[in-house]
Amino acid sequence: MFNSDCPGRQVLDRVTSRWGVLVLAALSDGPLRFYLLRDRIGGISERMLSLKLRELTRDGMVLRTVEPTVPPQVSYELTPLGRELTVPLQALLDWIARRSLDVVAAQERYDASATR
Amino acid sequence: MFNSDCPGRQVLDRVTSRWGVLVLAALSDGPLRFYLLRDRIGGISERMLSLKLRELTRDGMVLRTVEPTVPPQVSYELTPLGRELTVPLQALLDWIARRSLDVVAAQERYDASATR
Repeated sequence: MFNSDCPGRQVLDRVTSRWGVLVLAALSDGPLRFYLLRDRIGGISERMLSLKLRELTRDGMVLRTVEPTVPPQVSYELTPLGRELTVPLQALLDWIARRSLDVVAAQERYDASATR
Repeated sequence: MFNSDCPGRQVLDRVTSRWGVLVLAALSDGPLRFYLLRDRIGGISERMLSLKLRELTRDGMVLRTVEPTVPPQVSYELTPLGRELTVPLQALLDWIARRSLDVVAAQERYDASATR
């Protein structure tokens, strides 16, 4: 992973994308339609959501299904590969949720000592 | 985490930064001096490495130590908080290392079906 030619670097870039992580996490509870996904992820634009869904579909992590209704409904769900990825990703999100206030406190200490 | 006002969002942004992840992973084996860190992480610029080290120090994840030698040597190591974070992060990197060729194969299938 430390080698810049490693194919893992590209996967790392995708996974280490704020919106990519949030899209994967949002789909971990089951399939969702585009607008429900958008509503679930605060602050994402439709353009960004479309881009991330296309990237994750291309990466084999998300499956796009067009339901033959009138009008057609498009929904997105995790593939087995994407579902597998959500396991370590969820552990990371859980850590962040548990420790983010400690990080904020560290930042405040750092800023206070820098201005002293 | 889905709420854009959550403090975890900012921590997520730091963690979901390609170079941030690689700096944390590179330090997980023990303290390193600046130039050794740079050599370990293929493709990182000194400017980017300085920035990431400053951010991670401010976040309370990295400790910067100036050794009183002539010339002074600066080294970086993980704090207990940073060390804690490397656990879920390493699980994520291991997954990527194990599955990145499957992602590349999925991309090739996607691209082949798109041009058909």
